[in-house]
Amino acid sequence: MSSDAPAESNVDVLIIGAGPAGIQHPTTASWPRTRIIDKRNTKIFCGQADGLQCRSLEIFDSLGFGDRAWKEANHMIEICMWNPGADGVIRRSDRIPDTIVGLSRFQQIVLHQGRIERFFLDNIKKYSGDTIKVERGVLPESLEIDMDKVEDDAAYPVKVKLRILSDEEATPPQAQSGSKVKASDGLFRSNLGMEDDEEDLIRKSKARAGESEVVNAKYVIGCDGARSWTRRTLGFELDGEATDFIWGVMDIIPVTDFPDIRMRCAIHSASNGSLMVIPRENRLVGLYIQLKEVTPDASGRADRSKITPDFIFSAAQKILAPYKINYEYCDWWTAYQIGQRVGTSFDAERRVFLAVDAVHTHSPKAGQGMNVSMQDAFNLGWKVGLVAKGICKREILSSYQSERRRVAQDLIEFDQKFSRLFSGRPAKGVMDAEGVSMEEFKEAFLKGNMFTSGLSVNYGPSCIVVKPGDAAEQGDGSEKTKKLVATHAITPEEFQRKQALASGLPVGMRVNSFRVLNQACARPWHFQERLKADGRFRVILFAGNILNPGQKERVDKFCAQLDAPGSFLRRATPSGKPIDTVVEVLTIHSAKRVETELLRDFPEVLHPFDEHVGWDYNKVFVDDESYHEGYGNAYKNYGVDRERGCVVAVRPDQYVGWMGELEDFAGLEGYFAGCLVLRG
Amino acid sequence: MSSDAPAESNVDVLIIGAGPAGIQHPTTASWPRTRIIDKRNTKIFCGQADGLQCRSLEIFDSLGFGDRAWKEANHMIEICMWNPGADGVIRRSDRIPDTIVGLSRFQQIVLHQGRIERFFLDNIKKYSGDTIKVERGVLPESLEIDMDKVEDDAAYPVKVKLRILSDEEATPPQAQSGSKVKASDGLFRSNLGMEDDEEDLIRKSKARAGESEVVNAKYVIGCDGARSWTRRTLGFELDGEATDFIWGVMDIIPVTDFPDIRMRCAIHSASNGSLMVIPRENRLVGLYIQLKEVTPDASGRADRSKITPDFIFSAAQKILAPYKINYEYCDWWTAYQIGQRVGTSFDAERRVFLAVDAVHTHSPKAGQGMNVSMQDAFNLGWKVGLVAKGICKREILSSYQSERRRVAQDLIEFDQKFSRLFSGRPAKGVMDAEGVSMEEFKEAFLKGNMFTSGLSVNYGPSCIVVKPGDAAEQGDGSEKTKKLVATHAITPEEFQRKQALASGLPVGMRVNSFRVLNQACARPWHFQERLKADGRFRVILFAGNILNPGQKERVDKFCAQLDAPGSFLRRATPSGKPIDTVVEVLTIHSAKRVETELLRDFPEVLHPFDEHVGWDYNKVFVDDESYHEGYGNAYKNYGVDRERGCVVAVRPDQYVGWMGELEDFAGLEGYFAGCLVLRG
Repeated sequence: MSSDAPAESNVDVLIIGAGPAGIQHPTTASWPRTRIIDKRNTKIFCGQADGLQCRSLEIFDSLGFGDRAWKEANHMIEICMWNPGADGVIRRSDRIPDTIVGLSRFQQIVLHQGRIERFFLDNIKKYSGDTIKVERGVLPESLEIDMDKVEDDAAYPVKVKLRILSDEEATPPQAQSGSKVKASDGLFRSNLGMEDDEEDLIRKSKARAGESEVVNAKYVIGCDGARSWTRRTLGFELDGEATDFIWGVMDIIPVTDFPDIRMRCAIHSASNGSLMVIPRENRLVGLYIQLKEVTPDASGRADRSKITPDFIFSAAQKILAPYKINYEYCDWWTAYQIGQRVGTSFDAERRVFLAVDAVHTHSPKAGQGMNVSMQDAFNLGWKVGLVAKGICKREILSSYQSERRRVAQDLIEFDQKFSRLFSGRPAKGVMDAEGVSMEEFKEAFLKGNMFTSGLSVNYGPSCIVVKPGDAAEQGDGSEKTKKLVATHAITPEEFQRKQALASGLPVGMRVNSFRVLNQACARPWHFQERLKADGRFRVILFAGNILNPGQKERVDKFCAQLDAPGSFLRRATPSGKPIDTVVEVLTIHSAKRVETELLRDFPEVLHPFDEHVGWDYNKVFVDDESYHEGYGNAYKNYGVDRERGCVVAVRPDQYVGWMGELEDFAGLEGYFAGCLVLRG
Repeated sequence: MSSDAPAESNVDVLIIGAGPAGIQHPTTASWPRTRIIDKRNTKIFCGQADGLQCRSLEIFDSLGFGDRAWKEANHMIEICMWNPGADGVIRRSDRIPDTIVGLSRFQQIVLHQGRIERFFLDNIKKYSGDTIKVERGVLPESLEIDMDKVEDDAAYPVKVKLRILSDEEATPPQAQSGSKVKASDGLFRSNLGMEDDEEDLIRKSKARAGESEVVNAKYVIGCDGARSWTRRTLGFELDGEATDFIWGVMDIIPVTDFPDIRMRCAIHSASNGSLMVIPRENRLVGLYIQLKEVTPDASGRADRSKITPDFIFSAAQKILAPYKINYEYCDWWTAYQIGQRVGTSFDAERRVFLAVDAVHTHSPKAGQGMNVSMQDAFNLGWKVGLVAKGICKREILSSYQSERRRVAQDLIEFDQKFSRLFSGRPAKGVMDAEGVSMEEFKEAFLKGNMFTSGLSVNYGPSCIVVKPGDAAEQGDGSEKTKKLVATHAITPEEFQRKQALASGLPVGMRVNSFRVLNQACARPWHFQERLKADGRFRVILFAGNILNPGQKERVDKFCAQLDAPGSFLRRATPSGKPIDTVVEVLTIHSAKRVETELLRDFPEVLHPFDEHVGWDYNKVFVDDESYHEGYGNAYKNYGVDRERGCVVAVRPDQYVGWMGELEDFAGLEGYFAGCLVLRG
């Protein structure tokens, strides 16, 4: 079937790399036409587990499968710190909760990466039918951006040539070890592993005819790993350094008398290095083991041949002594050299985007690997999706770099500090300046817990976050961001006044969750459950005390403006579609539920009528006590006045974009005019 | 492929009828060889929804899919009572919680029967692989019990001849209506529908050759409906009467201004009859509508031809006036005549059992239809399963009738009272003796809520419930039960003394659930989550204050007896199998978690060691505060002394069978000797 000109086709989004972050993108409802390619012919990371932090679980929940992860995973509840005593023998010195109490309705859990990929793939199938499938054994060969068309909404300016590999070419090599361990290893993707093999694969593949294809894409997302082909092709760099610290990882079923093997443990031995224990599901435990007996050579690279499961495990045994540990079953193992790097640029022309390892690499011990990556994807996904569909303006795409490069930089800084403290020798006393103080380590852990939860992220000003300041100050500091990110004009004083209307909902941060009741049926919901990742913006109307006639008048007036023919809400809605297609209005009021009636007390736009199926009963909620699940106290927790309420605009990824008084309809309209394509 | 002698084979269990209760039986791990047959060639009850009560959800959870039901269902939170005011116009007179607060960790929900069947079928697949499949279009033709072999454990004394139907024969007839409604109806299975068609089907099928087969079963379970072929073949009766009350059911998406359409409502109109509103998932609402304009004729049968969706709906509109209601979409409709009947006998020779509609029929309005049926199946399932596998003695099978016929009788009584109150005309005042007092109705509702939750069930004495009294007193009162049910000898005084050791765990009732923490990893669990329906009995050791040396000595002594070579635990365990195969020992202690160590403070039998996978970390729990999920206060709630603890034996269906002091090892051993087959 060979021919001279390869087949050519158009697609809205091309995703390169089918790892967990790559396949996350098209997992929400109404995603544009997409193809996902991966050079490997099979899912390969069979053994690896990941810690899932609070924010990742909130994201999973918004995608509809938080409960599946929660049910299958091991829950990590407590961190035990083990340090050498005066006699040099390790003993438990501290216990702290693994997740800060009260931070989120979820706590950190640990789950097999394969299961997480399964949840994403199930969602792709659920929402795309069979129109989006991962195409394996497909490799990008070239990428060109047509600079004349990058600002043309209708164009497909990114031309990518693909090569279809043979089965043999697409099968990843597995390192062979002489050990008793039959488990698969992850060295081939570790930074101790071989160089990437794209060039070699392309050369081989070219010997066969007719095995290539050209795709013209509106947008390309490169999720193709730390040695990202996409990044290298764009000519972007990863800035940063490798350290001398080398660690091994083994996921085993331990047979041991160590008492805290089912706790997350940070263990510093006196002189044999450090070890972290991460208990997993199904009796498995992940051990992260410092390998003090192997160091990088002059070129900065470690000798990979020495690193075997037996070598790694014997290091673990020394650190854990006098406790005994052994195993019969090993699920997976790898080794890596700690290093921290961040990409110089996260996108090219707002047409080609880099995510995950392609723009930040760091050590896995802080449990951030998959979490930050998924948050990258969650940030980028809705933006590309809504722009490709013509719902959002292209301007919002610049906020990907300004928002996520800042997070990547923070992560790298945290990881540098944490790795140093964890890999260092414990101080023998206050005078031991070269050793690491265990008090300092504990402090770093406690502080780090807030950062690693993913809930301290606070996005800077942009067209989708109305804040004072400029991108250079609160964004990633790059010249590019400074130039490209459009912001709304707002003075610090004005901002402070608005922010005070809902002090528990900081602009730029994710909407925290408290229980509210459905007005029509009294069912309690965690409010975040109503903020599904379906690509819709939301207006939250804190309607206050709706039974007070003065307040009712304010609510009626606000709703009349929302409902008016030329309102942003009407103009954002595609003709013939329901009024909640692009922006959904949700209400939380503070009057007593039993004294209030949905149809009597609330304007129609808050519970729209449909002639086929009647009133919408799922948009008005009340801050009141439930029969069975306590009292969420939402107004108090969100810091909103119970009488007067306020209005909050929320992005599709649950981040607060704007807030104001009920009278500030112009401000609300301005927010949406800045990011949505409004008709008419 | 015809031959003269039909194929003949053996099977442990043959289940006749693949409704929800039929397919529930083989949904747990390690179920014996089973076949499930159904005369219909397809699942047919496409539209019907069911209320799932607390106990049903606890059962679902023990089977592993409570979360799926909880997530997909509509949650019913509140009941609103509507009655005529002085002007004869209906108005809301009361609100009460739909589930009694604090009763269970679940509340009543409503879900499509098709989804519930799906959960069961998924479980069958999960636990049986593909060895158990529903065989559709298969009809039983004859059933004979070989009386010489009924007490022989190794025998297959029930011979059932099966006929394999053609596709056409197995397709159920659908009533055709002249209405706009295209929805399927359930009249063919209603008691207003046609007679069952087994004889007709068998006659037709016999015309074709080679379409029959003989199965020799150890046990047969008939779940084949109110006109059960199995029951009729055994010659057993259903005792009871039909009433004159006729009701229609419609599941629609309503377009209405009735304010409580998303609440469960009980509506009595002044003179147009009564209506119940049951809100469902996906905007659907089930309406249960009294049809005052159709009454049974002299023979006691109603004229079915008058009953159409339009007829039913116009009755609903009259009852709801002055509120307007309409619909475009109807999912399902049916009609039925209220009647209450209970089977005279629930089993034949403890070899053939009847369950569900085959032994009790009643009105659907109390929301008990599927619930009592599933509880029947849950009660019978483990008994048949464990006896068929040679783990339990045949004696336990008599308790199916003594336990479940009592419940069926209570249900019938409740339903008679409730139906009378609900179908009666509301009283016009205190002098209106013929009318129903709305106060009395509310009282009945409140009391009924405890009964309908399924949590008031308290099983009488038998070999698996150690209680004073005899079967005639606390069982179903039948001569058969009196004769067959073996009981343990215990005086009322002795029983009272034992029961006082755990006053919150009444012997004969299900184990309530409170949060406890896993000692090894600090994870909070609802204790019921550890009582999975995997066919295992459990010993719960309330170990008390294990850090008190005197108490530790008591625990050590108890454990030494458990662990001794000739103990019931060792004798119950098949040779070469883990010690927790038949009876699992779970511990809850009351010392501080952080002061206690699993490996240091607890005898090995409480956390058994395995040379391949190490210690068992999932059997010892502590009554202590959690970081994120509060304090379960289990000792207080179970009414157990925090210092001295006690021992409780729990059946595979979570019912308490026995309790005693730690010193009463003989009592515990006696309990298990009475129901388990002990080796040696």
